[in-house]
Amino acid sequence: MSKQIDFYFDFASPYGYFAAREIEALAARQNATVTWRPILLGAVFKATGSQPNLAAPLRGDYLRHDVARIARMLGLPLVIPSSAPVKSVAPARLFYWLDAGDPALAKDYALAAFDAHWLRGHDIGQLDEALAPALSLGLDAAAARAGMEDPAVKDRLRAETDRAIERGVFGSPFFCFDDQRLWGWDRLPMLEAWLKSGGW
Amino acid sequence: MSKQIDFYFDFASPYGYFAAREIEALAARQNATVTWRPILLGAVFKATGSQPNLAAPLRGDYLRHDVARIARMLGLPLVIPSSAPVKSVAPARLFYWLDAGDPALAKDYALAAFDAHWLRGHDIGQLDEALAPALSLGLDAAAARAGMEDPAVKDRLRAETDRAIERGVFGSPFFCFDDQRLWGWDRLPMLEAWLKSGGW
Repeated sequence: MSKQIDFYFDFASPYGYFAAREIEALAARQNATVTWRPILLGAVFKATGSQPNLAAPLRGDYLRHDVARIARMLGLPLVIPSSAPVKSVAPARLFYWLDAGDPALAKDYALAAFDAHWLRGHDIGQLDEALAPALSLGLDAAAARAGMEDPAVKDRLRAETDRAIERGVFGSPFFCFDDQRLWGWDRLPMLEAWLKSGGW
Repeated sequence: MSKQIDFYFDFASPYGYFAAREIEALAARQNATVTWRPILLGAVFKATGSQPNLAAPLRGDYLRHDVARIARMLGLPLVIPSSAPVKSVAPARLFYWLDAGDPALAKDYALAAFDAHWLRGHDIGQLDEALAPALSLGLDAAAARAGMEDPAVKDRLRAETDRAIERGVFGSPFFCFDDQRLWGWDRLPMLEAWLKSGGW
């Protein structure tokens, strides 16, 4: 039976972006499947009394340098968008609208929206900028706009975020698999070692 | 010229412990030298308005599981001490008293104190428990007690903690090298890659 990874992330998280670029290849190497679950970390921070790392003393400055260093290592022409940390409701809703019909297409959208934000600096918190990556995938603008307003889609994003908090998710990226949880892009090697060995 | 790593840690940090066990071998492989600098993260948290991870909602529970999982992976019989997060003034002062005369001996003490806390659950925040690992290294108890009360030793610990905050250190372990900073045990592979390649 194929192993299953729940991949939690926020479009506002650069480490979530790095993980999104790598998680499917990692899963394929280990015969695992990945369910992508964008959430609103703002709600998590509210529930836990914490704050976005980008806005925290010392951490925010460190994070900017660290993210740029990782991007150089990966050969990615990353920018820190002026809208960071972006409000990620719009792309997360669009993701879940797509996910209900075609999870693979939703993943393609997520990667395209991440690219728009982290490589080109677009403010994907704005409706038009959240839509643009979907249009580039051939989707219909009117249908996508209507989908984002669908109460079932809004409920799904709320439910995914609530469920994430219940499962102890407090950052992005966050991986749930077997009875385990792992936080952070820098833990992908440990996730892979766990899947490969069956755990320890 | 040998490369230089400043290794900041708090005895209260299990990730600092994991890093302390690995940093010298890593440095030796890359022809680097390591200066160990224990600090009081409590002062850092006060300066930055944050709190110990062990005490934070969601994070604290995650950290306990994560630390146990890393220990299993490393084959370490780790315990979470009932005194965690321990007040680490006593072992940090004893470290700097030793460091002034013999940095290698100070490192031996640090590893022994870490072991006492994280493998045997001793409350090294208590003076006698902070002294015990020094005595097992053959040090004189009266001299060590006097050393920990030396104003120069107390000043050194304060100065190291203040300097760490100035350099943007906000967690344990934290590594400063070249013009770079890296946070976390899970970044040791990146630290080694940087030293090996000369950076990117």
